[in-house]
Amino acid sequence: MTTKKFLLQEKDIPTAWYNIAADMENKPRPILNPATKEPVSEEELYPLFARELARQELNRTEAWIEIPCEVRDLYKVWRPTPLVRALGLEKALDTPAHIYFKNESVSPVGSHKLNSSLAQAYYCKKEGVTHVTTETGAGQWGAAMAYAAKAFGLELAVYMVKVSYHQKPYRRSIMQTFGAQVIASPSMSTKAGRKILTEQPNYQGSLGTAISEAVELAIQTPNCKYTLGSVLNHVMLHQTVIGLEAEKQMEMAGEYPEVVIGCFGGGSNFSGISFPFLRHRLKGGKALRIVAAEPESCPKLTRGQFQYDFGDEAGYTPLIPMFTLGHGFAPAHIHAGGLRYHGAGAIVSQLRKDGLVEAVDIPQLETFDAATLFARTEGIIPAPESSHAIAAALREAEQAKLEGKPRVILFNLSGHGLIDMAAYDQYFAGDLGNHRLSDEDIRKNLGELEQIL
Amino acid sequence: MTTKKFLLQEKDIPTAWYNIAADMENKPRPILNPATKEPVSEEELYPLFARELARQELNRTEAWIEIPCEVRDLYKVWRPTPLVRALGLEKALDTPAHIYFKNESVSPVGSHKLNSSLAQAYYCKKEGVTHVTTETGAGQWGAAMAYAAKAFGLELAVYMVKVSYHQKPYRRSIMQTFGAQVIASPSMSTKAGRKILTEQPNYQGSLGTAISEAVELAIQTPNCKYTLGSVLNHVMLHQTVIGLEAEKQMEMAGEYPEVVIGCFGGGSNFSGISFPFLRHRLKGGKALRIVAAEPESCPKLTRGQFQYDFGDEAGYTPLIPMFTLGHGFAPAHIHAGGLRYHGAGAIVSQLRKDGLVEAVDIPQLETFDAATLFARTEGIIPAPESSHAIAAALREAEQAKLEGKPRVILFNLSGHGLIDMAAYDQYFAGDLGNHRLSDEDIRKNLGELEQIL
Repeated sequence: MTTKKFLLQEKDIPTAWYNIAADMENKPRPILNPATKEPVSEEELYPLFARELARQELNRTEAWIEIPCEVRDLYKVWRPTPLVRALGLEKALDTPAHIYFKNESVSPVGSHKLNSSLAQAYYCKKEGVTHVTTETGAGQWGAAMAYAAKAFGLELAVYMVKVSYHQKPYRRSIMQTFGAQVIASPSMSTKAGRKILTEQPNYQGSLGTAISEAVELAIQTPNCKYTLGSVLNHVMLHQTVIGLEAEKQMEMAGEYPEVVIGCFGGGSNFSGISFPFLRHRLKGGKALRIVAAEPESCPKLTRGQFQYDFGDEAGYTPLIPMFTLGHGFAPAHIHAGGLRYHGAGAIVSQLRKDGLVEAVDIPQLETFDAATLFARTEGIIPAPESSHAIAAALREAEQAKLEGKPRVILFNLSGHGLIDMAAYDQYFAGDLGNHRLSDEDIRKNLGELEQIL
Repeated sequence: MTTKKFLLQEKDIPTAWYNIAADMENKPRPILNPATKEPVSEEELYPLFARELARQELNRTEAWIEIPCEVRDLYKVWRPTPLVRALGLEKALDTPAHIYFKNESVSPVGSHKLNSSLAQAYYCKKEGVTHVTTETGAGQWGAAMAYAAKAFGLELAVYMVKVSYHQKPYRRSIMQTFGAQVIASPSMSTKAGRKILTEQPNYQGSLGTAISEAVELAIQTPNCKYTLGSVLNHVMLHQTVIGLEAEKQMEMAGEYPEVVIGCFGGGSNFSGISFPFLRHRLKGGKALRIVAAEPESCPKLTRGQFQYDFGDEAGYTPLIPMFTLGHGFAPAHIHAGGLRYHGAGAIVSQLRKDGLVEAVDIPQLETFDAATLFARTEGIIPAPESSHAIAAALREAEQAKLEGKPRVILFNLSGHGLIDMAAYDQYFAGDLGNHRLSDEDIRKNLGELEQIL
């Protein structure tokens, strides 16, 4: 557990978020109104999102968006987060690679999700919104949104994917302690929930279904907006504080990453750590590889199709250009609940299509092997989601060792796993399995997609 | 959740621990060999503790003990910890008091306990020890010792109080993830455990019993030492890094505390935050009040007797001069498992006797009320133990409001409660009660004590 930390001062917290869409040669395709197949306007997004968030969602011209003082002040509660050279891990691996991780687990709710929830709650409050809804998988986003809603005095209802509601009862309790309402999804409280429960009474939920329920409630509640923890462009935007800090910290370490890795669900932490580095490559600057680490049970970037698809299961959202497994896809019940989502956000999908982003899919057991080694050498028990990034980093370090060459690896430790210990218990007991998605299941789900692209 | 943080640099981590015994006019009474009633020598402690720890335990002359580089390097993983002005809490209370807290919850295991476990593991390793044993209540100490044992390559067996083993399964999992053996206490693996299980088959354990089991295993295992998370002088010593940092940080804030508060089990975090401030008062310097916050179910400092007593239930330890409820006392099953201990350490007990330390006992429900308010205003969910300090701070702030005068309050947030969410669930469901210890129960337990003082 010999680690080396690179620490910034409060004044080094970024003052602006980085909007990669402004620098992309091939812009992300527009999101479409499903009825007209026409691009959605800012105004059409107002019923769902705060106006400023709708503006940010469609902004393809300004590379830098100023962070409001009120949000930056709250970032100071835990930011800047440490960058750590994982010397203990390197030693255990006996690798010539240098492994760094950005430690986003130090936030009060234990993950990076607060970077966006505070921004979303701030804009809602500023525009007079009183109620917000959202969905959550493992509960990292829900906990962060509950914290942010309390900070800005908003009432919050969270639809939590049912399998996680039972797997991770402590995250439900955390949300409730911060004053949020938590409902297991699918629920009887929405049309979308009732429909799927009628068709499949034992359905254990997915992020897609939970989003449908949260959207439905937001639209039907006065003075209420919907908030989302990933997938959307404005969420990626807010998360870039991670990579912007990491860039300065790598400079302090006197190295530049050859590969930057994030686990991948909808793209929030992955984009946050990687976009600020990628911007130099987009401008012809330093080359580096960007790797998204997916579960092999939910491999949209590695094995999905680039196509317009809904962001939710019921089809309430606009059509998003995404690498997708189909919005009706119900992922296996892996413990990395935050990665159980059928599609990738529009920006990452475009970058993937253009060959600027790589992806690997990783079996569940490999992620827990990696997590346990990391805990025992670096002293931090990682979230099952983040363990995908660790596993991918270990593969890179192993490759460096095989080649007998150094390699500078940076990954994002998006969150800690202290609330996920039941998963570790099952792992140690030998009760966890892998859940590779079959080609047949992929074909089946994609077959139902309308072909627009 | 508007907070103001006071941050130190790595170079500000103390280079020496503060040994208050050197500055006390009335030294703590010696610990005694129960057979001879003679003071225990350093050598007599060697079978139990690493030699340097035995030396520290009896040291009454040197006020400053240098922190070994190897320990200080590991402190750097999370230290210095923040001092926070709780502006959100002050606002909610509408109090003229200024409330500060030292945030020890940011350590990788979520509490202050790592300050001593790393030191103890270091000295054991340095002296060639290969195996260590310990006990734990709620699991904060056990998790910290598991981390430290892994950091220094020691094998660890932890006896965890049975009621906590079931109340806090995630802390057990954390210890196991770090590679420790965890046994619910009382167990059949020791004579002490078998005896109490024979007499009371459904006994749910106490720290006193768990200590007996850990001591017994240590003595019977080759090359093995026992480690303890509280009560002993050398543990208090290691914890003084908390107060030494806080002193510098209060200076940054431009204020000096009028009252310093810590929750109280055996005394580790309480001593850590308060002794460095108390040293000025001992030398005739600045006046301030020091308050220990106890559960009303386990009120040794408020309602116990100052007397020689065993540190454990079976009577394996030397006799310690302590405020005690009797070593056979089985505390109620409150969620603050770390405070369920019958006695106070020798130094705090002497300070209490000399009127240098105050104590308050607090009902369980008041601590959860305080914890919930703290979570919703400061964004950190506190451990049930730490919530006793918060509740005591709220009483002080309320008093300041009644008097219409400012008051500078400092308390130690010893740990977060993310692993204690089941307790919060019970609280919100109305399933928690108070467990005030009756005078009769106190008399009964104390009646069995041999009167030496």
